[in-house]
Amino acid sequence: MRELGEFALIERINAGRVQAPGVLLGPGDDAAVVAAPDGRFVVTTDMLVQDRHFRLDWSDPRDIGRKAIAQNAADVVAMGAVPTAFVVALGCPADTPVEVIDGLTDGIWAEAGRAGGSIAGGDVVRSPQLVISVTAFGDLDGRAPITRAGARVGDTVAVAGRLGWSAAGLAALTAEADPNDELVAEALAAHRVPQPPYSAVLAAIVDVAAGPDDSDTSAEGVLGSSAAAIPNSLTDISDGLLADLGHIAAASGVAIDIGSTALRDPELEAIARRLDADATQWILTGGEDHAFVGTWSARRELPPGWTPIGRVLAGHGVTVDGVRRPGSGGWESFSGVDSASEPEPR
Amino acid sequence: MRELGEFALIERINAGRVQAPGVLLGPGDDAAVVAAPDGRFVVTTDMLVQDRHFRLDWSDPRDIGRKAIAQNAADVVAMGAVPTAFVVALGCPADTPVEVIDGLTDGIWAEAGRAGGSIAGGDVVRSPQLVISVTAFGDLDGRAPITRAGARVGDTVAVAGRLGWSAAGLAALTAEADPNDELVAEALAAHRVPQPPYSAVLAAIVDVAAGPDDSDTSAEGVLGSSAAAIPNSLTDISDGLLADLGHIAAASGVAIDIGSTALRDPELEAIARRLDADATQWILTGGEDHAFVGTWSARRELPPGWTPIGRVLAGHGVTVDGVRRPGSGGWESFSGVDSASEPEPR
Repeated sequence: MRELGEFALIERINAGRVQAPGVLLGPGDDAAVVAAPDGRFVVTTDMLVQDRHFRLDWSDPRDIGRKAIAQNAADVVAMGAVPTAFVVALGCPADTPVEVIDGLTDGIWAEAGRAGGSIAGGDVVRSPQLVISVTAFGDLDGRAPITRAGARVGDTVAVAGRLGWSAAGLAALTAEADPNDELVAEALAAHRVPQPPYSAVLAAIVDVAAGPDDSDTSAEGVLGSSAAAIPNSLTDISDGLLADLGHIAAASGVAIDIGSTALRDPELEAIARRLDADATQWILTGGEDHAFVGTWSARRELPPGWTPIGRVLAGHGVTVDGVRRPGSGGWESFSGVDSASEPEPR
Repeated sequence: MRELGEFALIERINAGRVQAPGVLLGPGDDAAVVAAPDGRFVVTTDMLVQDRHFRLDWSDPRDIGRKAIAQNAADVVAMGAVPTAFVVALGCPADTPVEVIDGLTDGIWAEAGRAGGSIAGGDVVRSPQLVISVTAFGDLDGRAPITRAGARVGDTVAVAGRLGWSAAGLAALTAEADPNDELVAEALAAHRVPQPPYSAVLAAIVDVAAGPDDSDTSAEGVLGSSAAAIPNSLTDISDGLLADLGHIAAASGVAIDIGSTALRDPELEAIARRLDADATQWILTGGEDHAFVGTWSARRELPPGWTPIGRVLAGHGVTVDGVRRPGSGGWESFSGVDSASEPEPR
């Protein structure tokens, strides 16, 4: 990397990349220009630090790059926006093998493509360890942003995507579980690269936006399943299901009760038995799966890909089967108390 | 910081802050929403790493925060855009005193305000040293972006802002020059907080955008000085004057010659004599001042605040008084050879 130099490195990173249509001016000038057809854009940023958010001995560079994009794209989609572009600032030691950078950037571009965008620009600097800072953009296409504050008493709570698998993968890594075991391998993959179900959100809300112009002009098409498809509140699960539902409950001024039966996952329970762990704990408090959880008016059918898990009630706080769980915190960056068992910096 | 915890810290950082009008939804949800009235937005990102881009024993946290924003806002303005908003990802050790974070965030907000925007969102994570990753946004208000590729043979090259003062300040720090000396103090301040002359660019180009609606309907107002005010090419000086003019020359397929006399700065020469250094070298290759350099059609008057320093010619490369200077490189992140004398990571 030192031998290559900054400008050659940037050239290498950008070589042969094809920008998404929304990137009007890509890398190479003082700044990029990105389309915002809605007249607004959704923006979120997340920083990943080596040995804090990922380990090079646990994940390959490509997986780390994909994860960095996925967690930001999930935040954009959780606002009801369609991802358009990303910028990435990368800090790395001068002796970083260029293959590590190649892997990272390949993963970054692959996940950006999966989410529907491309990398409009970035920065590369020297730092004592790898640091990846991603900023992601999305377009609302005329829709109101879907916040955490819109849950209403009576709403159905539903999830899209799997819960607890990233936590199971982390536990498998810590316990050095057999990676040739099929279920363990699946959990490891889920930990290394979360796969947010972008389309479960986007298929639903983009249908609605198409509205009266949609070719399906039946009452069901225009008013029925389409109108039902927009959730009243939505977030991605990054801190843990209970913690993130807690954010919705607090922002909306409501209580939320979820049922543990609806959340059971026999495969996850099989892994938990092998690792002498608690699958329910993984499901309720494991972060980083970047599944989505939202609330919908109970009068309507849920859109495809969503599983009902609970109900919005008057009051405050989150309960499971009517009972408040102690230590339901989830991931906090600085307190050691309620954190997921992420490795400490060394 | 550890005692405070992530959520309390984020609350503290955002307490009492007033968002710019373009920030439609600020911190507190999965993502922010920022206005892009132009239907496009300009975006740039820069990462600053402790002991690489700043030192806590050389700069106070407020200055570091200001610098992080200033260098990004300068990139936005260098595209001909008006800064609207920023997002900031902050990595810091768990034992960071909360006063350091307060100083950083105060500086970040102060410079964002000076540039015309606010902090729409961010992230706070734990990392072994301070890392500040800023992404900045701007609006073009219907204008074409001003790139590095628009310089035309015959253009006048002009600068706005001071050159070499940041390099002089760095030299003064390295040499432990007397900070009570008035000129040394000025150089130290310039190194700690670059002051990009945003208004020299914006006053010129925003006038033009007002165009026919402008109250000044004289021929001079509508066609004369206004039409002259838009440069054909523009960049901010972050890598050093020669290096950044080299980017314009390469992108535009032209040569650029500048005159050393026009660049002389008697005060900087006085500091250089005291430090046994070369003021011309600071001016030509010192980065980080974030002054602006652009090229204008020679038929027109330069807008206020701009000093002519040279001419665009046919050919390629950058010369000073007709002579190519060896080692004109400027700042590169990974090659040690052409770098400014920034401290190495420890």
